[in-house]
Amino acid sequence: MEITLHSPLDMHLHLRDAEMMKLVAPLSSDFAGAVIMPNLVPPVTTPDMMEAYRQRVLEAVGCSFTPLMTLFFTPLGEKELEATRALPGFFGMKLYPAGITTNSEGGVSNLAEAETTLRLMEEMGIPLLVHGESHGFVMDREEEFLAVYRDLATRYPKLRISMEHITTAAALRLLDEFPNLCATVTLQHLLITLDDVAGGQLKPHLFCKPIAKRPQDRDALLAAALGGHPRLMFGSDSAPHPRCRKEACGCAAGVFTAPVALPVLAELFARHGAADKLQGFVSGNACKLYGIRPTERSVTLRDEPSAMPVPSSYRSYGCEVVPMFAGERLPWSIVR
Amino acid sequence: MEITLHSPLDMHLHLRDAEMMKLVAPLSSDFAGAVIMPNLVPPVTTPDMMEAYRQRVLEAVGCSFTPLMTLFFTPLGEKELEATRALPGFFGMKLYPAGITTNSEGGVSNLAEAETTLRLMEEMGIPLLVHGESHGFVMDREEEFLAVYRDLATRYPKLRISMEHITTAAALRLLDEFPNLCATVTLQHLLITLDDVAGGQLKPHLFCKPIAKRPQDRDALLAAALGGHPRLMFGSDSAPHPRCRKEACGCAAGVFTAPVALPVLAELFARHGAADKLQGFVSGNACKLYGIRPTERSVTLRDEPSAMPVPSSYRSYGCEVVPMFAGERLPWSIVR
Repeated sequence: MEITLHSPLDMHLHLRDAEMMKLVAPLSSDFAGAVIMPNLVPPVTTPDMMEAYRQRVLEAVGCSFTPLMTLFFTPLGEKELEATRALPGFFGMKLYPAGITTNSEGGVSNLAEAETTLRLMEEMGIPLLVHGESHGFVMDREEEFLAVYRDLATRYPKLRISMEHITTAAALRLLDEFPNLCATVTLQHLLITLDDVAGGQLKPHLFCKPIAKRPQDRDALLAAALGGHPRLMFGSDSAPHPRCRKEACGCAAGVFTAPVALPVLAELFARHGAADKLQGFVSGNACKLYGIRPTERSVTLRDEPSAMPVPSSYRSYGCEVVPMFAGERLPWSIVR
Repeated sequence: MEITLHSPLDMHLHLRDAEMMKLVAPLSSDFAGAVIMPNLVPPVTTPDMMEAYRQRVLEAVGCSFTPLMTLFFTPLGEKELEATRALPGFFGMKLYPAGITTNSEGGVSNLAEAETTLRLMEEMGIPLLVHGESHGFVMDREEEFLAVYRDLATRYPKLRISMEHITTAAALRLLDEFPNLCATVTLQHLLITLDDVAGGQLKPHLFCKPIAKRPQDRDALLAAALGGHPRLMFGSDSAPHPRCRKEACGCAAGVFTAPVALPVLAELFARHGAADKLQGFVSGNACKLYGIRPTERSVTLRDEPSAMPVPSSYRSYGCEVVPMFAGERLPWSIVR
């Protein structure tokens, strides 16, 4: 069996910067493009920083890949938003509650301060991407944040709001209530639960934020993706950290899935008889929702095991990162 | 302020064996005695193995410490139980559902097979200690097992059943329903929640089974301990693993608290104005419930910081283990 995907998009990707970006960016090059997260150190908060980062991304990943750039949300006025929107490759604003995940210390701590900017974004048609977690108990953080999404969706009915990397059945229910909401979901949250992270031994390479939830949540997310939910998009949230920071005592949050995402998704959708829904999930839904027209690219996947197992790690430029499924033989592979 | 404890007991302790035991056993010697877990490799399943292990424990820990020995539960007949009960230092049978935790592969997979043994234990007054977890979702395992405790408590009304290392408010509610149930609780489950294990960075040295639960659970356990619940006993479940197995990718479950337990408990109870309840929690309740009369020992604790921080690890005999609060200065210390 073969599945050919046209212009697959990763709607949530961390490419980092400098040496780490040189290592990981080429591993996303089977995608036609990706929404690039701005939580660098320091975060990408100005149009100039964003354009400079875009140039570095293009150089690192290769020219047939379209980086859809995001700006780290800070309150901006009309002029700054206009200047940002005018830049090539600008996609939207990424809002982080302050301190909620990797390099988010400069995020928003009071949404009231964002009011003017959000109103302008609504008028100007600039999408808002949100890391939706509260500061509460780790298993409740997403569900507790849903009231904020509800408030945003109600107050800004024309604002395109993306609930990034959703992990719960409750988030899916909210998605269905508001047509101005859309959502991304990662590879790992379609596959694993907290049991895989901490139910047997503790598995640092499966630890991410938001943390994987209950079986019912994973099952609901998978059913929505396989069922072709029109406002659910693939966003890997592939988040490389140096191996030493993942296997240390205070393990950093993030699963590195970029190099395995497409073959794993192909196998998952085919196994559930939903191969016809994969195109929408990895590209079509996003194109319709955002009016994107990515570079024409096609990738063919085949139900033949890869010749080689997934590398136990990727190393170069002095960096080493461990991918999901490290050392395993994937049942599907990309036809090269 | 000072608190003097008489014959403190650790009602759930892993001393392991061989070199590891030589390293960790002396670190429990401020206790007058402890209930010693039998999940060695192979598990302690016969009276001979138990007596030989007791001798090794005595040699490792020093002679003023009373090891209260447990046998790894397997179905036994009357003669075997009589022979076991006749041995010095025998305390009870420890039942593990098969495969539920470290070295529990030989545990019970069908409680119906335990029927005859449990009936005999009830008649002979032999306590049953249970690792009460199902094979379900990690956050639900204890709560799902409560139906088994309920069944055991109902069917064997004169059997003394200890719910080991409880972690949930639901377990406390069940405890209050059946006078033949008692329970132990660890140091870490009075202090931490899943947030401490996986809410920020991932913390392998706080990872244990049962896993730490919700804030409401921790708060209920602490309130019961501070309130002097007469059937709640301190059992550290101090569970040393070699550092390399805790900080590896597949981190083993267990928190090593033996060397810090008494000063941390003293500070905790004193801070909450419950210093008068500590004696019952660490000794009196167990003595009453089981009719134990441990060697007379007293330990005095004082609200003065220890001269030295908790070691970052304990090393000798080729082993290295990392304690809870490694590298921290404890506000209370043992008066030497």
